[in-house]
Amino acid sequence: MTNLSLSLLTDAVDASMPLAAKLFDEIGRKTADTAGVSREPYSPAEQIAVDVLTEAARSLELEIAADSFGNGYFTLPGSDRGVPGWLVGSHVDSVPSGGNYDGLAGVIAGITALAALRRAGSAPACDITVMGIRAEELSSWYGGHHGGHIGSRAALGSLPAAELDSAVNSRSGRALREHMRAAGFDPELVGKGVPYLSPDKFRGYLELHIEQGPVLENREVPVGVVTAIRGAARARSCRCLGTYTHSGAVPHEYRSDAVMAAVELVRELDLEWERVRAAGGDLVFTVGQFFTDSRVHALTKVPGEANFSLDIRSQSEATLKDMAALAERLARDIAARRRVRFDFGYFSLQSPAVMDAGFRSQLIDGACVLEIPHMEIPSGAGHDAQDFAHAGFPAAMIFVRNAHGSHNPDEAMDIADFALGTRLLAWMLAQN
Amino acid sequence: MTNLSLSLLTDAVDASMPLAAKLFDEIGRKTADTAGVSREPYSPAEQIAVDVLTEAARSLELEIAADSFGNGYFTLPGSDRGVPGWLVGSHVDSVPSGGNYDGLAGVIAGITALAALRRAGSAPACDITVMGIRAEELSSWYGGHHGGHIGSRAALGSLPAAELDSAVNSRSGRALREHMRAAGFDPELVGKGVPYLSPDKFRGYLELHIEQGPVLENREVPVGVVTAIRGAARARSCRCLGTYTHSGAVPHEYRSDAVMAAVELVRELDLEWERVRAAGGDLVFTVGQFFTDSRVHALTKVPGEANFSLDIRSQSEATLKDMAALAERLARDIAARRRVRFDFGYFSLQSPAVMDAGFRSQLIDGACVLEIPHMEIPSGAGHDAQDFAHAGFPAAMIFVRNAHGSHNPDEAMDIADFALGTRLLAWMLAQN
Repeated sequence: MTNLSLSLLTDAVDASMPLAAKLFDEIGRKTADTAGVSREPYSPAEQIAVDVLTEAARSLELEIAADSFGNGYFTLPGSDRGVPGWLVGSHVDSVPSGGNYDGLAGVIAGITALAALRRAGSAPACDITVMGIRAEELSSWYGGHHGGHIGSRAALGSLPAAELDSAVNSRSGRALREHMRAAGFDPELVGKGVPYLSPDKFRGYLELHIEQGPVLENREVPVGVVTAIRGAARARSCRCLGTYTHSGAVPHEYRSDAVMAAVELVRELDLEWERVRAAGGDLVFTVGQFFTDSRVHALTKVPGEANFSLDIRSQSEATLKDMAALAERLARDIAARRRVRFDFGYFSLQSPAVMDAGFRSQLIDGACVLEIPHMEIPSGAGHDAQDFAHAGFPAAMIFVRNAHGSHNPDEAMDIADFALGTRLLAWMLAQN
Repeated sequence: MTNLSLSLLTDAVDASMPLAAKLFDEIGRKTADTAGVSREPYSPAEQIAVDVLTEAARSLELEIAADSFGNGYFTLPGSDRGVPGWLVGSHVDSVPSGGNYDGLAGVIAGITALAALRRAGSAPACDITVMGIRAEELSSWYGGHHGGHIGSRAALGSLPAAELDSAVNSRSGRALREHMRAAGFDPELVGKGVPYLSPDKFRGYLELHIEQGPVLENREVPVGVVTAIRGAARARSCRCLGTYTHSGAVPHEYRSDAVMAAVELVRELDLEWERVRAAGGDLVFTVGQFFTDSRVHALTKVPGEANFSLDIRSQSEATLKDMAALAERLARDIAARRRVRFDFGYFSLQSPAVMDAGFRSQLIDGACVLEIPHMEIPSGAGHDAQDFAHAGFPAAMIFVRNAHGSHNPDEAMDIADFALGTRLLAWMLAQN
């Protein structure tokens, strides 16, 4: 039961939408790139986003805090400050030449919801803290092996200090540790002492985010309630090694054809994907890179090398492990038959993050009473919410319909859809 | 019936082997590159090869001639100069940093056979002309659409003049026409007037060549009698176009995945290859190049583009056409199902060249009486012999065992195997 009438709540959210529009506009303008926006982790542009949000929090008379890793916290005090509060977060950084909404929409939705609750005049039952998270999109700016989501993992104490050195900025060539320090924060505290955020202090974590796929758009539904964030089994740099020979003169039985072997592997995984889908399983499988060596490959040469990547994602950890095991098994079998060698390099496994069942059904109830068309949907992309879920926070996500995907300047969220998502978020926060 | 005793013939060939060794050595030395030899078409290095061979022909008192395209002709007059003679040829050029034997072995075998016949003291029944052919390996030096085999096709009148302009030297950027003219020859005569060589003037065309595959080496047989030169159906620059999207967030039904579509196409053609082989058909199928766009592809992006080449070779024209038609049919079907577009660009068809049945059985007879271990074998690579066969010359080829393939500095023909092949060639030329 909410302690606010529905109409008071929705009116208060709608009345706060000009603030949301102003924040999107100001941050978008100040971090614009030749195309879209660029808010590089631990750059001045990312700092601008945090500064603008902090200024808005100040004018709303929220409590303002920060941790040693640059994350910003904006708190509306609850009537009982002793009970666990809500954490509402998303990230303030972006990919290079990305869109203005990926990440930022969730932080602005949080601020807007707090503005609406203030406007409605009723103190919430518990503290509600909006978190502006740093460096979620690290992967698109840094090479090397690392998991991204730096700000959330640093605050949760789940970021291994080694990643500060293995993540290397693609343009500067310097490690994340140096960039974090240069931005005025304290990388030496990563992985040390008591985490800044721990699940016992919070009721749960909520995140609003634009959908990065086309599902809500295609189904004409403005709001999604996320079931789980897909985990991933990934091999970034697979190689198949055979032998270069003459394409006309060498018969089948003397070939070690790397492309034909890799093609058989990929096709068999594709067929398995078809079987998993037919059985109602959740899976997406992508070979984003597949290339022979341009320095030596030729029309008339049997290829001696093929390079490819495997990106396997599912809400089910068992499905991830089954696909990875099938890839290994196929590689052994094909290598023996085709006289080639497969090397998958590092095969990483990131567990799926199932959203809290209670929060999910509450969000669906809320969408019903608020008369917001909605559907349940998995998240294929990774989000800070998964790190909170893995750290023991009950977590939930609200997706907002968005055309043209994300990670590009053409992402297109309708502000009316954003308002519906923010109503649902505010409704959830207003529950006792 | 030969007009020479077998022992006289083989002794004469063996006694002429020092000449062969001297020619290999001198031309190899004078055209050496950092690795292997480089005898670029219409370059000074190719001219050196012709000059050394001409000097050898002069010392053997052969008649020396040349056509307008730089091919050299060295003739041992027959006892009846009015009847059609033998033409014995191969090419004097090489790929960049290639081996010394690919091409040159056939010309030196011809010269050595003529030296042996001279030494045996018996004039052949008809003229025997050894032809040192230019620019067979053009493809490895020139870009653009062209069929290589320039010298033979120019002399046969089957070279379209347009190829002189469409073939562009990869280093100089200038067309073949200019390079041919700069070397002192006459490109304006290509395709004009009566061909320099016509089949009615010749008994047939014979060519000795190193095997470019591993078959003779693996079967431990020094000499092969070629059944046919495989034709080729080729698409050099195939593209599959889909749409780049997020690898996690976009489900199967909204993807246009260029790699998965191209993989299905290649795998289906591979399976058809398996069926053709199982049914005893002759086919080799190669995808020498397969690549996503390195400027935009990524582990976490559904690929919107895949580029690949198709090289289909067979002794059977029907098999070539069936495979090419299957590729087109698969492309239509896969494009419709997977929401992508295939573009094969120019799909060329080069007909197979079946070797003359009479010559083949004569060569097998000769190998038997000379006690040379031999086998019948298709040629997967293209040779000048195919242009003579297509022009109406009865043609045959002798393969000599060769390790490590060709088109590389490591090709390894045993000079003892070369002597066996040359014995067979001389025996054939000594038949009435």
